[in-house]
Amino acid sequence: MKQATQKTVSVGSVVVGGPKFVVMAGPCSIESQEQLLQTAKHIQLHGASILRGGVWKLRTSASTFQGLGSEALSYAQKVIQQTGLPFVTEITDPRQVEVLAPVVSMFMVGARNMYNYALLKELGMQKKPVLLKRGFSALVDEWQKASEYVLQGGNENVIFCERGIRTFETSTRNTLDLNSVAVLKSRTHLPVIVDPSHAVGLSEFVPQMALASAAAGADGLILEVHPDPSKALSDGRQALSFTSFAETMAKLERLLTALDRPFVAGSSASGSVR
Amino acid sequence: MKQATQKTVSVGSVVVGGPKFVVMAGPCSIESQEQLLQTAKHIQLHGASILRGGVWKLRTSASTFQGLGSEALSYAQKVIQQTGLPFVTEITDPRQVEVLAPVVSMFMVGARNMYNYALLKELGMQKKPVLLKRGFSALVDEWQKASEYVLQGGNENVIFCERGIRTFETSTRNTLDLNSVAVLKSRTHLPVIVDPSHAVGLSEFVPQMALASAAAGADGLILEVHPDPSKALSDGRQALSFTSFAETMAKLERLLTALDRPFVAGSSASGSVR
Amino acid sequence: MKQATQKTVSVGSVVVGGPKFVVMAGPCSIESQEQLLQTAKHIQLHGASILRGGVWKLRTSASTFQGLGSEALSYAQKVIQQTGLPFVTEITDPRQVEVLAPVVSMFMVGARNMYNYALLKELGMQKKPVLLKRGFSALVDEWQKASEYVLQGGNENVIFCERGIRTFETSTRNTLDLNSVAVLKSRTHLPVIVDPSHAVGLSEFVPQMALASAAAGADGLILEVHPDPSKALSDGRQALSFTSFAETMAKLERLLTALDRPFVAGSSASGSVR
Amino acid sequence: MKQATQKTVSVGSVVVGGPKFVVMAGPCSIESQEQLLQTAKHIQLHGASILRGGVWKLRTSASTFQGLGSEALSYAQKVIQQTGLPFVTEITDPRQVEVLAPVVSMFMVGARNMYNYALLKELGMQKKPVLLKRGFSALVDEWQKASEYVLQGGNENVIFCERGIRTFETSTRNTLDLNSVAVLKSRTHLPVIVDPSHAVGLSEFVPQMALASAAAGADGLILEVHPDPSKALSDGRQALSFTSFAETMAKLERLLTALDRPFVAGSSASGSVR
Repeated sequence: MKQATQKTVSVGSVVVGGPKFVVMAGPCSIESQEQLLQTAKHIQLHGASILRGGVWKLRTSASTFQGLGSEALSYAQKVIQQTGLPFVTEITDPRQVEVLAPVVSMFMVGARNMYNYALLKELGMQKKPVLLKRGFSALVDEWQKASEYVLQGGNENVIFCERGIRTFETSTRNTLDLNSVAVLKSRTHLPVIVDPSHAVGLSEFVPQMALASAAAGADGLILEVHPDPSKALSDGRQALSFTSFAETMAKLERLLTALDRPFVAGSSASGSVR
Repeated sequence: MKQATQKTVSVGSVVVGGPKFVVMAGPCSIESQEQLLQTAKHIQLHGASILRGGVWKLRTSASTFQGLGSEALSYAQKVIQQTGLPFVTEITDPRQVEVLAPVVSMFMVGARNMYNYALLKELGMQKKPVLLKRGFSALVDEWQKASEYVLQGGNENVIFCERGIRTFETSTRNTLDLNSVAVLKSRTHLPVIVDPSHAVGLSEFVPQMALASAAAGADGLILEVHPDPSKALSDGRQALSFTSFAETMAKLERLLTALDRPFVAGSSASGSVR
Repeated sequence: MKQATQKTVSVGSVVVGGPKFVVMAGPCSIESQEQLLQTAKHIQLHGASILRGGVWKLRTSASTFQGLGSEALSYAQKVIQQTGLPFVTEITDPRQVEVLAPVVSMFMVGARNMYNYALLKELGMQKKPVLLKRGFSALVDEWQKASEYVLQGGNENVIFCERGIRTFETSTRNTLDLNSVAVLKSRTHLPVIVDPSHAVGLSEFVPQMALASAAAGADGLILEVHPDPSKALSDGRQALSFTSFAETMAKLERLLTALDRPFVAGSSASGSVR
Repeated sequence: MKQATQKTVSVGSVVVGGPKFVVMAGPCSIESQEQLLQTAKHIQLHGASILRGGVWKLRTSASTFQGLGSEALSYAQKVIQQTGLPFVTEITDPRQVEVLAPVVSMFMVGARNMYNYALLKELGMQKKPVLLKRGFSALVDEWQKASEYVLQGGNENVIFCERGIRTFETSTRNTLDLNSVAVLKSRTHLPVIVDPSHAVGLSEFVPQMALASAAAGADGLILEVHPDPSKALSDGRQALSFTSFAETMAKLERLLTALDRPFVAGSSASGSVR
């Protein structure tokens, strides 16, 4: 049930769900120390305040690139130290909690695992926040009920993430459902953010959908950014280039200002740059 | 194929698809002279520049209210004279062209008739523009191809209108697909507008989705407005009240300004009011 | 509402919805006198009792083959005379009633026109039966309500036809929804048949789905058959060859016998052949 | 890729995917020793050869009945001893393998976990067969690729189970997609069965869909049966009563005979009863 006051969730030092709009960004997969550091510095410079990056990747085919695993995790640790950015990555197995917990500021549950209640229950026993992506065919009602598997375990720090749903349409990867942001925010006090990268799947349309998400009332965004999208080991087709990311952030700031909503400043003194 | 320059479509004296953002508004069904006039004056005052209103209504059940028909048309004629607003209404049968043509500035093809190629061919032989709503389960590709039935007949004045698609989700009437606005604008030179009223179906969420549509790059909106939504003879659940419409238009103007896109001014000197 | 007794609908001399299972078959488009006659004789020999064939074709693109029109109609007239088979074809415009009525034994409303209520009302004023295909995204409830536009006009002879729905699945043209046959038969007294050709879209899978439709309780089938599917001007990918049609009919007879349901015999003495 | 010869999978002493059609049946949830034993004896008497029953239930809401857990497992053990029926139940967490392996003859992966690759990889390291249900919004292609997570681990004993997909239709719980049976059997050598209980969700329509599944070419069925469906603790609306199950099996036998496919005989001397 909707509570009188909006609940905020702290991801490291960053507050999500408060007056400030939060941008999380980074590569789909962590591919190298250099790639992650370069991306982290760029997104921080342009106003993002949380770093994302895939360690173990869930892929439809067992034969495609599955992420660098623990190697990626060590890269993440160094970049966190260098930039001070809180880090979020996907957890795909309840037995990964132990190895991820020391590094991440937030666990992400991907769309394929929204119904993985064993995993959700495990995360309900943790203290760190959970970014709960909507299953790509989940009803808003099921998505909200899935969050209860975390909440009932005692972990009240859930952030919802709309990431597009599966429909009959084939011209885009998924169908971004911004109605769900409005519906969910009317039903719950928890923050709701949007992932336009997966929802569209085509980088040329991501900036427009990022703006639309902010206008629809989302509390933030999670965006895929890559130093050279054409060479990305996974999901390169939807990753923003550095230039495109910077332009999107500039437009976003103007739009949010018109909506009376400021950005969360990054941990660097990036305010003057934007 | 996408042409180098955006094509504009003139609806009466109003240019759609140019630099200015256009709002069309009015009741789902025309219910009385008074209801239509009152609504027309209100929307005009707050910056809308085209009047909509249903004459013959397509309803799922043959036993529900089907519109006032020719009576509604005579009301529309008087309101057009009094306000100077161009008028758009739905055509549901090729044999209605004769009676509608003298009154409307644009024919609207509803979602149920997007595949009614006999109707589209008839409209291809007219001079007045056609507002082509997306079928609620139409691929963007089919929607674009449907427009060719009009264009090949010699009528080049087609405006596309995204109005939500049918998906598995049940918390809203349809799923607003803003991806389609981005995709279609990349493929065609014709204007694309959005109908958030049908796409969400719940008036409390329409303002957010109107803003999101503008941020996504649409060329305009078509909104349902009613003097007393709770007493509307059709679709009252999704109609904006006068107050809500005025507030939405004010927010929209701020947002569009941040996006460097002005409104089309209404035919009254409404600029100072908004 | 479901009536105590099942209603039968007579298509020419063939009774649909009674104890006997009825097969309608023929080419997607009528392409020549020879093609239609040859197909009609073949399907009749193997137990089909109603001939189908497209005169005007509804096609997604205005630039593809749209059917032979009145030429096809004259071919149909001759084949009807030679074989005695009742003929069903699609009507796509209310203004076609006049020219089709003297030739057809039943009007077919295609999936794209299930919501074309102007057309349905026109057919409600006719005496000949109407084969009402399900819109490819129509709820069973909407499909049933669409039939009321015909029934309320005074024409009680409606046969429903399930032809597959649009879903996220892409390995087949549509998703055959046999649940709908069970649901609709529990709600209405009117006959329900299935079109597995459009529902699957791949001829190699049509025979299995034809058998499944019969097992699900359908009152009949409508099948696309072509003398040389690889050369068909439309929908060749889903048409059964003569050999495949004959084999399917033989299997169907065995299956229906096990379900205590006989075929309608064709107008020729084909009983001994099957 | 499709192999020349169909692969059979042995579930205890029962061969699935061979000439004989296999029926698995039992309650959604194991509720008591008595309920399970009574059901097991009934299904065995009427020709089913594998027992199903839920131990831990995945439920949309964390607040509803979640299964009896280890208590249910001890009931299952006793019933297996008394009847000799192989037992299949759902696994929802990779850490359950240890406790389930001594009891089950086959692990079932439910629709919600088809994308739970951590679980699939764990099962790939087991010897016992895996019943892989289709995710309710999974493409046939993704379903087949999910099986590779098991196969690549060295466990070649996978049986696919179609259980209905999520579509826009609301008159039934899901949409049974029998096209998928035909498509999958053309692509893989592994057995494919159907769960009409979940696919329709309404017990009155399950018998028709069970017959349709057999006619479509499935290698078997999994059916929910309960001594008193109105009192079932989960999914009672879709469970067959004992009477309805017996009637369905009798009809199925006649239909399969017409298709030249026999039943697997139960482990009791049930042949004379059916």
